[in-house]
Amino acid sequence: MVRYFFRQGKGEIKVSTDQSKNEALSPVTIIGLGEMGQALANVFLQNGYPTTVWNRTAAKAEALVKQGAVLAATPREAIQASPVVILCVLDYDAVHEILDPLGDALKGRVLFNLTNGTPKQARDTAQWAKDRGYDYIDAGIMAVPQIIGTEDAFILYSGGNKNSFDSNKELLDVMGASTYLGEDAGLASLLDLAMNGAMYGMLAGAMHAISVVATEGIKAQAFSSELLIPYLTAITGIIPNLARQFDTKEFTVGVSAKLAMQQVGFRNIRQASKDQGISTELLDPIQSLMDRRVAAGFPDDDFSAVTELFKQAKHQNT
Amino acid sequence: MVRYFFRQGKGEIKVSTDQSKNEALSPVTIIGLGEMGQALANVFLQNGYPTTVWNRTAAKAEALVKQGAVLAATPREAIQASPVVILCVLDYDAVHEILDPLGDALKGRVLFNLTNGTPKQARDTAQWAKDRGYDYIDAGIMAVPQIIGTEDAFILYSGGNKNSFDSNKELLDVMGASTYLGEDAGLASLLDLAMNGAMYGMLAGAMHAISVVATEGIKAQAFSSELLIPYLTAITGIIPNLARQFDTKEFTVGVSAKLAMQQVGFRNIRQASKDQGISTELLDPIQSLMDRRVAAGFPDDDFSAVTELFKQAKHQNT
Repeated sequence: MVRYFFRQGKGEIKVSTDQSKNEALSPVTIIGLGEMGQALANVFLQNGYPTTVWNRTAAKAEALVKQGAVLAATPREAIQASPVVILCVLDYDAVHEILDPLGDALKGRVLFNLTNGTPKQARDTAQWAKDRGYDYIDAGIMAVPQIIGTEDAFILYSGGNKNSFDSNKELLDVMGASTYLGEDAGLASLLDLAMNGAMYGMLAGAMHAISVVATEGIKAQAFSSELLIPYLTAITGIIPNLARQFDTKEFTVGVSAKLAMQQVGFRNIRQASKDQGISTELLDPIQSLMDRRVAAGFPDDDFSAVTELFKQAKHQNT
Repeated sequence: MVRYFFRQGKGEIKVSTDQSKNEALSPVTIIGLGEMGQALANVFLQNGYPTTVWNRTAAKAEALVKQGAVLAATPREAIQASPVVILCVLDYDAVHEILDPLGDALKGRVLFNLTNGTPKQARDTAQWAKDRGYDYIDAGIMAVPQIIGTEDAFILYSGGNKNSFDSNKELLDVMGASTYLGEDAGLASLLDLAMNGAMYGMLAGAMHAISVVATEGIKAQAFSSELLIPYLTAITGIIPNLARQFDTKEFTVGVSAKLAMQQVGFRNIRQASKDQGISTELLDPIQSLMDRRVAAGFPDDDFSAVTELFKQAKHQNT
């Protein structure tokens, strides 16, 4: 459910115009026609793939059927129509509700599960599939439905058999640029969720900044387009240095500013927020991380060193 | 103290090569030779400005004097050397320690205070200056010392007399692209601090994501350069829509995903973090904001609506 963000409404769906190639296109089945599932089925139809769909509420298939999709009467019938099955439903409960009664129907096919969930859910489902001899690959979609099929969409895959990914890569690329991360079925979900966590950090920070400057009558749209977005975009340029410090655990090498100074500067950020009557609840945990790292005897570290605190169990149950 | 971030180590200092123009360059005084003050003095020297400097510890002026700077014996002497005075010291205590004993020395000159502080400190100092008839403008530097004078540096100004800004804009642009925000002396500091708060939201989110994927052996440098940074950069593209919702208070118009769905998706992000043994302390306040807004009866709002909660006093004293 965190996949709806990405560059929105940009770009055209890429459509292959090589008809000789299209004749050989593999049939594909899409199960689940929420906003995302409909977008996936739509790009396959636009690219000339024989497309079968199924949804619990059949009405959601109407527009797709008009475009040439075949509406299957049951999940079993949908699966039997194609060697490649793409599953994109609400959650893993819905996944199992659909898959568990299917018996051997999935054998000899490849199931790509694009349903959003946790790494644990992905791994459990991969094990469930393995026990039954199913060819199963999990995925995390880094795109909103509106940009599926455009060059801005990308999808992470992991688990199962890399050959099953490789031999279907052309088909998968129709939805968005495909990357296979490894045989651990949880990886795609893990990276999806981690990156969306970072996204929320940025968006929450942006909404806080917008709220602070709004107290002085500054419009959010002008502020964000003229100052905030260019600034944040530029700031991404310092992440590689923090990442290097993280990888090497050399938190005092190539320091932009010592944590003892950042700690003081960050108090000004919080004070200004308080003075303007804007809650500091998003800032407080960042201050706490800086303060704790300095207090632990590391005033000369860079900001990357707060990651050392993430591993301490006492903070797990917040 | 939050000004040390920005695109680091990129670009060359822009140096004017028009010597006929240089003959008319105004003398400029820099008070405070920390890393930032030295960088400021350095670009004026490189651009041919007659430059006078002063620092409590005179030794810090050595390199600048070799390049042609005049080292003043006292702040008063430094100020009397130029019609434009740039102050860049540790904090506002240091500002007053230097300025308070000066009497009329500042009259007829323009003082640009580039010292980092809160809007309240800037406003108080502007009032102090006004009471004494000083021409005073406050500033927030959106740059690290390393990029002062390059095209990546920009500096926000506010307070005092806009004419004093306009007539010195060419000189100010030597340090970084200059923008005047308005007559409220607190604005430059407010926008500086707000944007750096957003920066920390993004960086903290990035460091959390890096920590989560590292638990599966994924290197931070590869992850950030290949996936995280491109993703965050793309995600800045949705800020304008959130800003529009904020400005119009139409939180249900042009919704990417309803808060009731984001709330559920965000639980997956936190669960995955917990499952991997990484603290959720940075994520928890975001979850709380979503949960409270939905519970308040706004499940169909977009994420921008959490800003409504920032204004509630009960969250001011955290």
